[in-house]
Amino acid sequence: MESSKEFKALIRECHKAKERAYCPYSNFRVGCAVLTEDGTMFTGCNVENACYGLAMCAERNAIIKAVTEGHRKFQAIAVGTDIKDKFKGPCGPCRQFLVEFGECDLYMVKPDLTYMKFPHDLLPMGFGPADLLAEKI
Amino acid sequence: MESSKEFKALIRECHKAKERAYCPYSNFRVGCAVLTEDGTMFTGCNVENACYGLAMCAERNAIIKAVTEGHRKFQAIAVGTDIKDKFKGPCGPCRQFLVEFGECDLYMVKPDLTYMKFPHDLLPMGFGPADLLAEKI
Amino acid sequence: MESSKEFKALIRECHKAKERAYCPYSNFRVGCAVLTEDGTMFTGCNVENACYGLAMCAERNAIIKAVTEGHRKFQAIAVGTDIKDKFKGPCGPCRQFLVEFGECDLYMVKPDLTYMKFPHDLLPMGFGPADLLAEKI
Amino acid sequence: MESSKEFKALIRECHKAKERAYCPYSNFRVGCAVLTEDGTMFTGCNVENACYGLAMCAERNAIIKAVTEGHRKFQAIAVGTDIKDKFKGPCGPCRQFLVEFGECDLYMVKPDLTYMKFPHDLLPMGFGPADLLAEKI
Ligand SMILES: [Zn+2]
Ligand SMILES: [Zn+2]
Ligand SMILES: [Zn+2]
Ligand SMILES: [Zn+2]
Repeated sequence: MESSKEFKALIRECHKAKERAYCPYSNFRVGCAVLTEDGTMFTGCNVENACYGLAMCAERNAIIKAVTEGHRKFQAIAVGTDIKDKFKGPCGPCRQFLVEFGECDLYMVKPDLTYMKFPHDLLPMGFGPADLLAEKI
Repeated sequence: MESSKEFKALIRECHKAKERAYCPYSNFRVGCAVLTEDGTMFTGCNVENACYGLAMCAERNAIIKAVTEGHRKFQAIAVGTDIKDKFKGPCGPCRQFLVEFGECDLYMVKPDLTYMKFPHDLLPMGFGPADLLAEKI
Repeated sequence: MESSKEFKALIRECHKAKERAYCPYSNFRVGCAVLTEDGTMFTGCNVENACYGLAMCAERNAIIKAVTEGHRKFQAIAVGTDIKDKFKGPCGPCRQFLVEFGECDLYMVKPDLTYMKFPHDLLPMGFGPADLLAEKI
Repeated sequence: MESSKEFKALIRECHKAKERAYCPYSNFRVGCAVLTEDGTMFTGCNVENACYGLAMCAERNAIIKAVTEGHRKFQAIAVGTDIKDKFKGPCGPCRQFLVEFGECDLYMVKPDLTYMKFPHDLLPMGFGPADLLAEKI
């Protein structure tokens, strides 16, 4: 996977998507690229709002765009910010959003395009679609 | 405007976008099409989550997609649901999201493609970007 | 109503609630007080998060607190910010949240405790609980 | 801690809070109790909305209530649902909301009041307040 042309594009495009970020409130740009099961790539940036609670993250943006085009299975997702020297995982809401659609490799990408595969479960003991249907008292 | 080819596409495509809705929780499909200032059209559907609070509406989906492609001014937005006989305006969060990017005509479209222009302010006396910068005590 | 002791408390307490705001990101404090049908008052402030999209408004905070204590009908809600000279209505998400629980008078309150009754529908042609059950095609 | 009277109350009250849940859309009741650093307890339930994306979880509800009363440090949080036989951790948004205020023990509680301490990091490699200030390129 990591040697494929598609993977290299994913790593590069997540930072390119960042350039479209609309983040006048946080001034914190984020970009994301997601690869669907069939090899199509979708990208997203963060889009904020004066009503802070409506802020949309880059990761959910990219996933939502893919779903809107009919994709619901993902191979890999790459996320880039302007943070110089640290790898950080996605926010809680984005992890939850990813979990909805099953397993997916996650890559954190620095501005210099070095990357790290996220080495944990996204949401250990997480709540997902099946739990809404679990047997209740 | 309403006689243009672009406008007719907008009315039609909002209902077509609805077919991609991921709404296993509400079973309430919504589709949206937005026309940017330069005449480009973007579409969106609702995308839900087992964590209900992460549900994304069709309207914000379409706007976010447009912003992600570099557009921040909108001419018109059309919204369609499966409700047979009523015209309904967008939810509060979507109105707020629209207001962020300025004025925009809104059309509510029935499944039979009859439509009505939204006859009110989206958010009367609404809170927007400029208010965050208003003089404080 | 506006001459009652309860109403005066509502106007005063919305600004007092503002002092507890946790808003390190926006530095925009908001306070709210809500009066339930039976005359109980609940207050709320905004509570933000490094993940901007999780920001909670003062209005929803106060309403949620009341619901958590078993109240679902509201007489009046008062909202105060630090903006010196303008009356502004609530954000779109808070309007939608209010609409869920039916009609309610809304008062916008300046820091000097002068106030204005919100003179519009909160969400003209708004989407509410009944619409999820409307007849579909 | 787990032998204290306060802890026993926490375990019990999270399920009692569930009874106030307003969840006509999911029919999935959740209750939460949180213990602040100074030993005060706050409770919360989930409060949903016809606009699904505005749904508020029990965990955030309880935390927000505590913050609104001036508390920003938490010892422990207990969460209960009606699921009969499984321990599940909180949703992603609630994990993120907790992380904002630092470390806190989390307990998952079954309807029969048996409980389990959450054995993982809430958000491994998570994004928090300090990251917004990290050195950028
Ligand atoms: Zn995120
Ligand atoms: Zn909406
Ligand atoms: Zn609000
Ligand atoms: Zn939650």
